[in-house]
Amino acid sequence: MHTLLDHISNPKDLRKLNPIQLPELAKELREFIIDIVATKEGHLGASLGVVELTIALHYLFDTPNDLLVWDVGHQAYGHKILTGRKTVFHTNRRLNGISGFPSRKESPYDTFGVGHSSTSISAALGMAIASNLKGNTEKQHIAVIGDASLASGMAFEALNHAGVSNANLLIILNDNAIGIDPSVGALKEYLTRVKTDRKLAAQNNIIKALNFDYSGPIDGHNLPKLLAELARLKGVKGPKFLHVITTKGKGLQQAEDDQVTYHAPGKFDKISGERIQKVASLYTKYQDVFGKTIVELAANNENIVGITPAMLTGSSLKLMLEEFPKRTFDVGIAEQHAVTLAAGMATQGLIPYCNIYSTFLQRAYDQVIHDVALQNLPVIFCLDRAGLVGEDGATHHGVFDLAYLRSIPNLIVFAPSTEIELRNILYTAQLGLKSPIAIRYPRGTGEIIDWQKPFKEIEIGKGVALKKGNKIAILSIGTIARNVSTAINLMKDPSEIAHFDMRFVKPLDTALLHQIFKSHTTIFTVEDGIIKGGFGTAVLEFASENEYYNKVRVLGIPDNFITHGSISELQNKIGLDPNSLAVLFSKA
Amino acid sequence: MHTLLDHISNPKDLRKLNPIQLPELAKELREFIIDIVATKEGHLGASLGVVELTIALHYLFDTPNDLLVWDVGHQAYGHKILTGRKTVFHTNRRLNGISGFPSRKESPYDTFGVGHSSTSISAALGMAIASNLKGNTEKQHIAVIGDASLASGMAFEALNHAGVSNANLLIILNDNAIGIDPSVGALKEYLTRVKTDRKLAAQNNIIKALNFDYSGPIDGHNLPKLLAELARLKGVKGPKFLHVITTKGKGLQQAEDDQVTYHAPGKFDKISGERIQKVASLYTKYQDVFGKTIVELAANNENIVGITPAMLTGSSLKLMLEEFPKRTFDVGIAEQHAVTLAAGMATQGLIPYCNIYSTFLQRAYDQVIHDVALQNLPVIFCLDRAGLVGEDGATHHGVFDLAYLRSIPNLIVFAPSTEIELRNILYTAQLGLKSPIAIRYPRGTGEIIDWQKPFKEIEIGKGVALKKGNKIAILSIGTIARNVSTAINLMKDPSEIAHFDMRFVKPLDTALLHQIFKSHTTIFTVEDGIIKGGFGTAVLEFASENEYYNKVRVLGIPDNFITHGSISELQNKIGLDPNSLAVLFSKA
Repeated sequence: MHTLLDHISNPKDLRKLNPIQLPELAKELREFIIDIVATKEGHLGASLGVVELTIALHYLFDTPNDLLVWDVGHQAYGHKILTGRKTVFHTNRRLNGISGFPSRKESPYDTFGVGHSSTSISAALGMAIASNLKGNTEKQHIAVIGDASLASGMAFEALNHAGVSNANLLIILNDNAIGIDPSVGALKEYLTRVKTDRKLAAQNNIIKALNFDYSGPIDGHNLPKLLAELARLKGVKGPKFLHVITTKGKGLQQAEDDQVTYHAPGKFDKISGERIQKVASLYTKYQDVFGKTIVELAANNENIVGITPAMLTGSSLKLMLEEFPKRTFDVGIAEQHAVTLAAGMATQGLIPYCNIYSTFLQRAYDQVIHDVALQNLPVIFCLDRAGLVGEDGATHHGVFDLAYLRSIPNLIVFAPSTEIELRNILYTAQLGLKSPIAIRYPRGTGEIIDWQKPFKEIEIGKGVALKKGNKIAILSIGTIARNVSTAINLMKDPSEIAHFDMRFVKPLDTALLHQIFKSHTTIFTVEDGIIKGGFGTAVLEFASENEYYNKVRVLGIPDNFITHGSISELQNKIGLDPNSLAVLFSKA
Repeated sequence: MHTLLDHISNPKDLRKLNPIQLPELAKELREFIIDIVATKEGHLGASLGVVELTIALHYLFDTPNDLLVWDVGHQAYGHKILTGRKTVFHTNRRLNGISGFPSRKESPYDTFGVGHSSTSISAALGMAIASNLKGNTEKQHIAVIGDASLASGMAFEALNHAGVSNANLLIILNDNAIGIDPSVGALKEYLTRVKTDRKLAAQNNIIKALNFDYSGPIDGHNLPKLLAELARLKGVKGPKFLHVITTKGKGLQQAEDDQVTYHAPGKFDKISGERIQKVASLYTKYQDVFGKTIVELAANNENIVGITPAMLTGSSLKLMLEEFPKRTFDVGIAEQHAVTLAAGMATQGLIPYCNIYSTFLQRAYDQVIHDVALQNLPVIFCLDRAGLVGEDGATHHGVFDLAYLRSIPNLIVFAPSTEIELRNILYTAQLGLKSPIAIRYPRGTGEIIDWQKPFKEIEIGKGVALKKGNKIAILSIGTIARNVSTAINLMKDPSEIAHFDMRFVKPLDTALLHQIFKSHTTIFTVEDGIIKGGFGTAVLEFASENEYYNKVRVLGIPDNFITHGSISELQNKIGLDPNSLAVLFSKA
């Protein structure tokens, strides 16, 4: 029973409370979040940190008429619960349930869909300019952004524009000194100085220099102070910036003490806060195959360096940081910089492994083309979380990479089908490649226990036959090979079916393709990437160039955005699960 | 005769001079640049502005052992002339001549290839970190960046990282308050205040706040001051930042007075500085078709707004700025922000025309996917300079767009074949589209004098037949239709050849494609975009899905980076000129 929260289904209800009741509501809201995330899993720490801020914003502002944009959205659970989604909050991140991020489809209170960082200021400024043009001077436009996100380039671009606009924009910096991993960089150090030096804050600081009405820093867990300052800011026209200090994980001791783990802790005991250990998997996550392998390689090759834009833990590059701190670089949420930094390093003979989640490399597409591939610099891109990522959903699926990368001249594009393949390509990449390479691999584990075999060089551009057969050839790329193999095993008579792991989307193994097209009537291509422009179409291009007229059927992600749910549920929905594949192959 | 310059073929020769001779050398170098650019054309103003800085850098630093990175590279003509390319400088930007930008292929003094803005700090930091790791503490690493480029997000990301590195990095801000158009934004206003307020400069300013050893501002045309300050900075370890004030176009009065025009003035009289007027073209540039049409449309639809990231003049959005200043936004070199700002505006019912050069939209690929297409917001992207752009070369060709855009769900992708088609799609786009649209069109003019016809709505997803024929079908997209038509006219017997302007890369006109595949044996697709993943492969996908086995031949940009030269020379090289096409079509 939550005495206050039980009676709140939207901000109108909230606004009926007396301000002195709000701290009690904050307590209840925290409990509600903890209760549900403890059993249903999700992102915990960020939302606990902004409970008071969330209540204050919806209490004081006229949402959804006033427009509130959350950056990234990990912190928006409280917002969702107070804006009509309390009763469905337990479906968070599940198939057919609510999204883990704000989403315009879901609620008018979610004014802008988020997921990737640092978009909120641009979006809210666009809304504020629209209000200006419509002569609406009363409407409020608010972006809530964390300090890690503020350090990303596009946030600065938006500040630079907002500072010379007369837009009615309030930026709230939720400064907790951590993103998923602790924040890094000169801006973070500066903000830390501001927090401890009142004079510096009052002075002509960075934000004031950019023409903002700066106030703060104030304690983001002190509701009376938050309410007072937000009420004052409602009356201030033009671009405003409120610096709020919060503690990520606030209210759950373990989450405050171990903020990295409790960003998304999995299941935990809601009373003690202790994480409930999963049965240890027999298998290793692909991210750890990367992390452990790069440590081995770096020990033997001092030119190897590792770069991550703010995903030390998620990419397991932290394993390298522990062993080789001087050669490991967390550059913050700065994909563009990460890629061009790697290019600069490569000009001097270093061998940079630049680890970026597939979906986030979209942020550095130009740098891959213009700074790396055009100069043919041998940067090694390691794209984690490629393919469907599951519960994070549409904003995070890494399904465009094969298509957007294979258009780029000079770039080698490889997708390992197993942990051993990943290990061996990581080894191969530092043997003296003359071109850049992108290696994309999925979230989760493979199925090989004993993957730490002696290294073997992989010949660039060579695919392999996994199973022989003389009528139908299945060409797969990456770990979806597993589903294909399972599908073949499900078939009544798989004798006519051949299965090839093509490995390289670029360069294609044309010798193998000639063999395949000459000796099989029907060809399936299977990938966990978008069909339009992906691996399968590369095979179609090969067929067209070489005037083959075999039947080719391209399987992959259809031409729409894929929702959230478990990876296997999503594969089911789009026909990439073993059963669906088996049916298709049988009909051929 | 240039008494000093004649004896300088590389920086070693330069270093033999007495410092008091350097102002005279600066005069000669300016004359040399003006002499050649006056007749051979090119980028003038930026290089004139940094003549003294260029001399000072090569005089004091041990280039190419010390590593010098120029941002963008428009300003690097003096650098090229002093580093071994004096005798070939007249071939600048021509086919088989030197590149208009620094290029690693061209010279060891060009340490990093540039073209797109704001990459220099990341690259130089990468180099500096490499030196650190190799134990080389003496090597100097210098990035020269303009104030317009410094305001772009990735430059801030690099500052944020460099400020906490112990890298031996010197950033030189070449502050002339202009990019191609005058600089904009809060940072520019701040820098202007710093220039006029010594106290502010001496104080804890933005750059100092990010941990840099800041010095300046100093006069960038005063060689003794530059030499003294650079000499001092050589001895300072860690990240350093020198603020230099220069005048774009320095030394040529017209270029100083009209900095926008003299960025790249075309031919001019080297004595008087007067531009030599070209014979007025009968035709209108595509950029002006855009600029004039958006003015017409905006006059009748008050929801229309225009956005450009720093290409007011180049995109001709300045025509809208003149008529509707409140609805026209130059956001600076900030493609990421421009796109998400447009998305924010679209949520409030505005109709944003976001005009970005094709090659620069690569900078905002993630924002197109994540902020626009995923939310299906009807932003109108106008991609100027699509296809081959000619003399700017590999960094600037807009050849990836069709491939990287057509993978994105919800996005409509259109390429007009004529000025009238561009005009009509701009009209159509504001009639209430429910999805975002990308409209890509080339540099240069079309061939229709009287293009300002009454508006006609274009049906989304409909191609048109330009010529009938019953055996061979040519499917073209965009203005390359002109080459196809010419090629057909060159053929002895073109009666069997049909020509279709498919207009939409997405959605494809599948009804028309069914007709075409049913009634023609051979199909050519022609595009001025990269073949891998582009329009032609979309047609291959259609054929595969629908089990057509016609012969399909895909023509377009091959899988490598295309050099600089005139557009027709480059088309010749890759077989997209009318003659080559005619030969191919005749053989079919």
